Amino acid sequence: MAGTPKANAVVGQSGGPTGVINASLVGVIEEVCKHNEIENLYGAINAVQGIIREDFVDLKKLSIEVIEGVASCPSSALGSSRDKPDKKYCGRILEVFKKRNVRYFFYIGGNDSANTAHIINLMAAEVGYEMRAFHIPKTIDNDLLVTDHCPGFGTAAKFVASALMGDDLDNRALPGIKIDCVMGRNAGFLAAAAVLGKQRDDDGPHLVYVPERPISMDKFLGDVDGIYKKLGRCVIVVSEGICDVDGKTWTEKITKENEKDAHGNIQLSGTGALADFLSGQIRGKLGAKRVRADTFGYLQRSFVGFQSSIDVDEARRCGREAVKFSMKEQSGSVAMERIGEGEDYAVKLICTELRNVAEKTKSMPDEFINADGNGVTEAFINYAMPLTGELQRTYFLGNYPRV
Amino acid sequence: MAGTPKANAVVGQSGGPTGVINASLVGVIEEVCKHNEIENLYGAINAVQGIIREDFVDLKKLSIEVIEGVASCPSSALGSSRDKPDKKYCGRILEVFKKRNVRYFFYIGGNDSANTAHIINLMAAEVGYEMRAFHIPKTIDNDLLVTDHCPGFGTAAKFVASALMGDDLDNRALPGIKIDCVMGRNAGFLAAAAVLGKQRDDDGPHLVYVPERPISMDKFLGDVDGIYKKLGRCVIVVSEGICDVDGKTWTEKITKENEKDAHGNIQLSGTGALADFLSGQIRGKLGAKRVRADTFGYLQRSFVGFQSSIDVDEARRCGREAVKFSMKEQSGSVAMERIGEGEDYAVKLICTELRNVAEKTKSMPDEFINADGNGVTEAFINYAMPLTGELQRTYFLGNYPRV
Repeated sequence: MAGTPKANAVVGQSGGPTGVINASLVGVIEEVCKHNEIENLYGAINAVQGIIREDFVDLKKLSIEVIEGVASCPSSALGSSRDKPDKKYCGRILEVFKKRNVRYFFYIGGNDSANTAHIINLMAAEVGYEMRAFHIPKTIDNDLLVTDHCPGFGTAAKFVASALMGDDLDNRALPGIKIDCVMGRNAGFLAAAAVLGKQRDDDGPHLVYVPERPISMDKFLGDVDGIYKKLGRCVIVVSEGICDVDGKTWTEKITKENEKDAHGNIQLSGTGALADFLSGQIRGKLGAKRVRADTFGYLQRSFVGFQSSIDVDEARRCGREAVKFSMKEQSGSVAMERIGEGEDYAVKLICTELRNVAEKTKSMPDEFINADGNGVTEAFINYAMPLTGELQRTYFLGNYPRV
Repeated sequence: MAGTPKANAVVGQSGGPTGVINASLVGVIEEVCKHNEIENLYGAINAVQGIIREDFVDLKKLSIEVIEGVASCPSSALGSSRDKPDKKYCGRILEVFKKRNVRYFFYIGGNDSANTAHIINLMAAEVGYEMRAFHIPKTIDNDLLVTDHCPGFGTAAKFVASALMGDDLDNRALPGIKIDCVMGRNAGFLAAAAVLGKQRDDDGPHLVYVPERPISMDKFLGDVDGIYKKLGRCVIVVSEGICDVDGKTWTEKITKENEKDAHGNIQLSGTGALADFLSGQIRGKLGAKRVRADTFGYLQRSFVGFQSSIDVDEARRCGREAVKFSMKEQSGSVAMERIGEGEDYAVKLICTELRNVAEKTKSMPDEFINADGNGVTEAFINYAMPLTGELQRTYFLGNYPRV
């Protein structure tokens, strides 16, 4: 950067952790080391909180052993924060950047993080402070705009698909009705990924409900009853954000006022309430004997030792590419563009404007959800299948010929 | 067997599935193929139910590809059953055995399955029907007598330990109080296994509660408060079967009468009620802001693609050994005897009498639980560590020096 040949950079990780957000961090670190323009790379502890506290780790000094170890670990190695900085907060960030001669800011996170980078970029321009701000996408919900899919989704999808493969085998062994509640407040991609391990016609999950399609209790119970009568068992996946036909989430309907937080928000994750409510409805109204419900919770985003290799590679590429883009662009958000399908699956990394990603979210497109609103389409499977890496083949001998 | 050179064999899988019960099945199949004494090997679909229905798969005809695929899959490939046959039921089983010239019975399961094999063995002797009955151990609870540990436990322990490694990293990234509820009605081995991935002094889980040590709500809240004040976060693991000081399980205390089953039993698994109750208590009485609860549910026993290699090997050996024992003994249960510790860890397989295993269960020995009743000892770690296979190393950069 003209006039500041030895500027510094800050990288942070924001919002909910994922299985590969650390791979993106490592991508940033390794690429920064290739560019003499950047002297120090400060890792901000707990995201923006660490910036205003000036709580930084020197990331260029880490050993390659630690770097590769970090890349293979889930969760945010720098810690995270759910703060959504306003202009005043961003002003404080900018003060620290000036003090420490930080001219490059890389922020790994969702749409709120893109917005933080966007505000800081605009403010720096306003006050004539020359710096560059880049957003690197991550979510398990897969709900960011522009990018074909988000780093973090593939690993979470692999976890959910593998869980359902096992759960369906378990449900074959001891038949009954099983409900699995999957993360996803507004977007159903992760719940939909539960189908990716299906290998036989009668494999579960047999029903998948996503937030994009409101569902009445009558329709839900009717669907379950139909499958249960046909197969003698039924495996159901629901997004935590599924809604009734009046648009209210089921969780909102069953949550007592005193269980809301200070902002009146309802906690969707970290509780088994929705799954337990649905299993109670099935037990009470369908009279089914063996009804079980599991809520996958935080395991979906932070399970150790179960990354999707393609997701790790892409997350790391996104981190590296953000640094490369910062050498020629003023600001932007890294996005993946799909340039090949099926066995030729490949992505190209592009740089989109921060405002295209900031504060907005994406839902499942209509063509990914079946007409009945209780399952996914081939189009979704073709879209999502390359992202999990190879899934194990499963076997059940109860389908084999008898003697 | 004298007089019946071409007898047949039946194998079945009973009770709750595990991650390696299929490896034991495959061990039986491959060993049976080496013994000319056995002509057909019938796989009973849904355990004893399949025997009385004569619902059998010819296991010697399966391709090696299927056999190895089955060995790598969780859950019970033949299906399962929770029937606990009495003498009358066992009489019907014996009728089928006579009709099909079944002279060898291999039953993979827990203490109830050992009891079924025991009853059938006694009845066959009574009526002078020459046959041999063997039990092959499996449980994720690790609660069978005689054997050092149970096939199935190591894989479930690897899952729980890996889940906690990830969950602790997640809790470091976004600090708060996290409760994880782990399977285990009477024995706390699996909850205790949550500590096996701990690598730093302040790694969670910080508190582990097992059914063997009653815990009052006051003591529980005091423990949590202490850790939370010290570390600013707290990760807690509870067995689903934890009890209050009056001996009643916490789940029993919070379950409404109408949620019990026909036998008055309370459903512990497949519901998030206990974890949600405990998180409600913490939120209400400690005033902590971020409190989350997960119940691991059926993922612990039937997750695809995450077996412990040592557990798979041992489960398969137990299956093979049962067949070998059947060539020289009348009946028995296969058990593992530990003959080496630490890096020299090894087991020897022995044959114990069925009545030594039937209908009884084992709890965590006192020396595995800490004096305060809220954690485990080094003795437990030395016992359990070899069973999971190697666990991944984890990294958190928030512990690194600041610049």
